Amino acid sequence: MTSTPPADSILIDWGTTNARAYRFVRDKEEPDKAARDRRRLPRGIRQVPPGGFPAALAELLGPWLDDAAAPPRILMSGMVGSRQGWVEASYRPCPARLADLAASLCAVPGLPHAHIVPGVCRGGEGAPHDVIRGEEVQVFGAVADDAPAVLCLPGTHSKWVRYADGALVDFATAMTGEVFQVLRSHSLLGALMPAAAAAFEDAAASGVVAEAFRHGLDRSGEPGGLLHHLFGVRAEGLFGAIPADGLEAYLSGLLIGHEIRAMAGLFPTADPVRLVADGTLAGLYTTAFRHLGRAVEVVDAEAATIRGLTRILEQAGLLA
Amino acid sequence: MTSTPPADSILIDWGTTNARAYRFVRDKEEPDKAARDRRRLPRGIRQVPPGGFPAALAELLGPWLDDAAAPPRILMSGMVGSRQGWVEASYRPCPARLADLAASLCAVPGLPHAHIVPGVCRGGEGAPHDVIRGEEVQVFGAVADDAPAVLCLPGTHSKWVRYADGALVDFATAMTGEVFQVLRSHSLLGALMPAAAAAFEDAAASGVVAEAFRHGLDRSGEPGGLLHHLFGVRAEGLFGAIPADGLEAYLSGLLIGHEIRAMAGLFPTADPVRLVADGTLAGLYTTAFRHLGRAVEVVDAEAATIRGLTRILEQAGLLA
Repeated sequence: MTSTPPADSILIDWGTTNARAYRFVRDKEEPDKAARDRRRLPRGIRQVPPGGFPAALAELLGPWLDDAAAPPRILMSGMVGSRQGWVEASYRPCPARLADLAASLCAVPGLPHAHIVPGVCRGGEGAPHDVIRGEEVQVFGAVADDAPAVLCLPGTHSKWVRYADGALVDFATAMTGEVFQVLRSHSLLGALMPAAAAAFEDAAASGVVAEAFRHGLDRSGEPGGLLHHLFGVRAEGLFGAIPADGLEAYLSGLLIGHEIRAMAGLFPTADPVRLVADGTLAGLYTTAFRHLGRAVEVVDAEAATIRGLTRILEQAGLLA
Repeated sequence: MTSTPPADSILIDWGTTNARAYRFVRDKEEPDKAARDRRRLPRGIRQVPPGGFPAALAELLGPWLDDAAAPPRILMSGMVGSRQGWVEASYRPCPARLADLAASLCAVPGLPHAHIVPGVCRGGEGAPHDVIRGEEVQVFGAVADDAPAVLCLPGTHSKWVRYADGALVDFATAMTGEVFQVLRSHSLLGALMPAAAAAFEDAAASGVVAEAFRHGLDRSGEPGGLLHHLFGVRAEGLFGAIPADGLEAYLSGLLIGHEIRAMAGLFPTADPVRLVADGTLAGLYTTAFRHLGRAVEVVDAEAATIRGLTRILEQAGLLA
């Protein structure tokens, strides 16, 4: 299934540390063909002062606002809809269908043509709570309507999602990325690591860094638990069993290994896990899945965002 | 077995954030009776500038130096013997007996009557490395010579130790306390917690805080892994399923629960685990062991330090 992006529509993925906008301009000669522009602003919701969202949006969109004949449709997803964002778009409970999200778009006060996609929640009545905001759009951009799938969306807070029968049925979060960052920056594990991170693009390659990453993946399957394995970053470093250049990759391998092993247990599937990622994370997680003997197929995260937002716009009848 | 502390001896437990000194003064009327003084200085090795250890020691001992007829014997343990400490006392490998430690005391340059106890290491040739420094003394203070035991010494870096046949046979570290601190202070998990920690003295009591702690212990046994469970501190907090006052205790329960479950797997025993702790940690871990259905007996950590250092002094033939 493909969705043709509508003309005069702007899709925005606005997270904690970045905002990315995509504009579709239909070709006047060939109305079925749409060109795509993108603009990026390193201003996530944490960098926007109270009351500063209209100005931040104007900066993000820049010349696009002057170009437009009429105010464009704007659809936003991500932390911009959280309590700390522009306006809170309440969570929809699981199971959540595309139509549920499209029916619950949150209006933005003072901007009649702008909406924010709600997040999704699960739990209650004894079951553990969890929340997702932004990745739910990527899920609907990464699946075909009728095929069940387990998806992994790695990041600061990795999301694992079960999709079935046209709905986001269940999900769970692992704090992998944030735990990596705080341990790297604020614990004694960072003390033995070089200040500048070693290049770490291709975890499947040979060399100290890639080897340390795979070593961490292997270690994550041994007894003792994550809290014990973490101390190994220091102990193996002290004895030079892992060179200083490899310690960051070893820590990364430990954490990603623990995430995949435990979350694959929560979300068993006979099919390849659909990994929604790009850049370095796509490389690390692909290596990790394969090293652990698990089938994986990669879906480009940006493409999933654009396709998901477009599908919601379409479903909501907001196409121009 | 009891060890009579020698007269004119000073025992020092010098760690990363604190230094504690104990002096023994033999009663002239009753030579078998020894009184104990203690002095404490909030100056761990991190707070001592390069070259500053002689001055820090003088400050720690204060009037004791003037009182002494002759320079007292000084035996130190802990991070003071690390590479970042006064002088590095190399690690002894496992299995390590009391006699091994006593035979490897490290002299302190310029202080002929002072020594530092070596740490203990394990691993190599494919086996995971680990290090212990300070707690090895407490182990020898907390055991009887001939009885095998599994010991848990909780803290910033919790140590689990197997003692058998008069030797520290094996051990492993869990970063429980440090992970708690960095997540509390530097991750988004701290955002929903009140700035001042709720009183959290008696984890076995009723009330929001104790209940949240036990809830965390229970959750630690469910599938999904620690990285997933950690995010629950935020998610349960967002929905008010755990009140803000209880979130810190919930985080603590999750981490301690994960530590005990995984480390008890590494160190199986039919006997009660010997918990070497005092204060709040003794209360939390005792509650945790009991809540998880595991037998435990508490050994006072300070008493174990004093007894361990005294035994080493004795074994080394350094008694006055």
